[in-house]
Amino acid sequence: MRFVCNQQVLAKALNIVLKAVTPRTTIPILKGLLLTVDNNGILKMVASDMDLSIERKIQVHSAEEGSIVVSAKLFNDIIRKLPNDDVEVTEENNTVTIRCLSSEFTIVGQPAEEFPSIGTVNSDERIKLDKAAIKEMIKKTSFSASIEESKGIIVGILIEMEDDYLSMVALDGFRMAVTKEKKANNDSKKIVISAKIMNEIYKIFTETVEDEDVEMILDDKKAVFLMEDTKIVSRIMEGEFIKYKGIIPKEYSSKLIIDRLELLDSIERASLLAREGRNNLVKLSLEEDGLVITSSSEEGNVIEKVNAHKEGNDLLIGFNAKYIIDALKVIDDEEIVMEFGSNVNPCLIKPIEGDQFLYLILPVRIAA
Amino acid sequence: MRFVCNQQVLAKALNIVLKAVTPRTTIPILKGLLLTVDNNGILKMVASDMDLSIERKIQVHSAEEGSIVVSAKLFNDIIRKLPNDDVEVTEENNTVTIRCLSSEFTIVGQPAEEFPSIGTVNSDERIKLDKAAIKEMIKKTSFSASIEESKGIIVGILIEMEDDYLSMVALDGFRMAVTKEKKANNDSKKIVISAKIMNEIYKIFTETVEDEDVEMILDDKKAVFLMEDTKIVSRIMEGEFIKYKGIIPKEYSSKLIIDRLELLDSIERASLLAREGRNNLVKLSLEEDGLVITSSSEEGNVIEKVNAHKEGNDLLIGFNAKYIIDALKVIDDEEIVMEFGSNVNPCLIKPIEGDQFLYLILPVRIAA
Repeated sequence: MRFVCNQQVLAKALNIVLKAVTPRTTIPILKGLLLTVDNNGILKMVASDMDLSIERKIQVHSAEEGSIVVSAKLFNDIIRKLPNDDVEVTEENNTVTIRCLSSEFTIVGQPAEEFPSIGTVNSDERIKLDKAAIKEMIKKTSFSASIEESKGIIVGILIEMEDDYLSMVALDGFRMAVTKEKKANNDSKKIVISAKIMNEIYKIFTETVEDEDVEMILDDKKAVFLMEDTKIVSRIMEGEFIKYKGIIPKEYSSKLIIDRLELLDSIERASLLAREGRNNLVKLSLEEDGLVITSSSEEGNVIEKVNAHKEGNDLLIGFNAKYIIDALKVIDDEEIVMEFGSNVNPCLIKPIEGDQFLYLILPVRIAA
Repeated sequence: MRFVCNQQVLAKALNIVLKAVTPRTTIPILKGLLLTVDNNGILKMVASDMDLSIERKIQVHSAEEGSIVVSAKLFNDIIRKLPNDDVEVTEENNTVTIRCLSSEFTIVGQPAEEFPSIGTVNSDERIKLDKAAIKEMIKKTSFSASIEESKGIIVGILIEMEDDYLSMVALDGFRMAVTKEKKANNDSKKIVISAKIMNEIYKIFTETVEDEDVEMILDDKKAVFLMEDTKIVSRIMEGEFIKYKGIIPKEYSSKLIIDRLELLDSIERASLLAREGRNNLVKLSLEEDGLVITSSSEEGNVIEKVNAHKEGNDLLIGFNAKYIIDALKVIDDEEIVMEFGSNVNPCLIKPIEGDQFLYLILPVRIAA
């Protein structure tokens, strides 16, 4: 095997592919990176942790067919430290030589046959995705998924295609995030992918060509995201996702229209005194002329007033500040709507118009 | 006590003063920040961990005399999160109220009398320092000091004034850094200050007015660094520093003149294969047409060639790559001189001309 390629091009591709390498894996070959060169001058780099596999194609020079597995970390470290010039990589008898100007590395490789196949998907149906919209939806939902692996399906994000809508939904038992985007096609599908993987996909979408086409191919076990030079294969989680639509309250007794950044800043400040113990508790008091946020601890207490347009009843309700902060941070809208039932019912955070996002946050019971 | 001050001004001052707060102190009052307002509208903020004390003065409005100790972390967190507007701080009966626009915090204070005095220095002699030169010298030496508190005096930096020179010296038993700057005065002094504190002083010098005057006042126990609005009081370490001048070889048998960045890059690359075990060992071979750097591990090996002008004997010598990298990183010169004795003698890194810096690095014994 042999190829010559510019150092920066290699480094960029490695940055993408290495997102599938888990350094703490117990399967040694998965710390590796599969390099395959064909006679058309295409180098394929593949990394996989079995749940997520990433393949990146690069046009190289002086190609000689062959394949080898190298240590992903070491190969990446070497390439990143080399000067911005042509890098020549050759392989003979499982020994890989990397040359660039006056540097020469010789590293031990492993036979390509030992690398697991990232598998093929048994479907011809290709679903077109809007890269920018998918990125936005991942950003707006993934933080709401559970981070406890033991919680099963809710560490995943539900991707639901219905009629002309694509939705993503994540929840952890205390809050839920729902985003919705119009889509061109009429496919109807429901899959769940781990939020951890979706976050890696977000990063890859950010690091690849901005407007490039993305196609999704699905079978029962795998979802493939196909771009020009990059292929992402993700495991689909087994099991049924929570029937989330029934959880969303249809009615409210109080409603606020409020400036998002003012509310965010005020809750962040109030949470400074809420951090210790007691669930990071801040109290929201909906009053005639707006919202009053209070919090207290042994160290002191805080009162924050935020102007808001209020409809409906006055209400005193407690929340874990973190859940509100997390949601307000990923929204871009200048103003938002908050809907409340009683102080034991969840609060909804929504846009002034439309249903692009919806956050449902459970309250914390407060002493009367 | 009462004062009004712009949020940004307070935040900046806090950033400086908080460098003297150790969050893990066992003396609760040292987690505090002493605020003192006088009738001339000057607010003094003081923090101390006993070894390092920092005082910052700020001009404030609506001043009413008084003093109080507040939690440094909480006060800082609150000020940093407030909007860029006037902040009013008042104190009554050890309760401190912080108001800014529609935010109101009430936090518990402690009586100012409980805060330790940062002490006075029994000397009238003021030594003028060049702020930029001192910063440069700290940067070029502090990383060479020992980081093991148990090693006594060598966790400190020796500051030595002799004739018209000011020197700083740091060493850890494996390497030594010496920097020298001309000074205007003829003071003759020798003190040792902990490298950790010198690093904080470096940061404070960076965050305060660039060209402002710095004066140093010394007694047996303390060194005071005096600026326009900022006063730093550092403990002077007890005990005699190592007589470092005798350690520096006067002669060499091989000498290289070499490009600093090329050498740095090559050693960093070579160290990729030297990291595991074996002291991070890289081998330097001084040959007729330059320097060849090699390193090897179970994962593979590397050969790096660097052009250099060589005088004297060929030599094969081993080093811990980290010690050479650390030194090369803080030097600004394009080319440097390396002097070698035998492969069991230390190597010197020096400028082509002058004696502004000198690094001495002990070799690692290598198998013949």
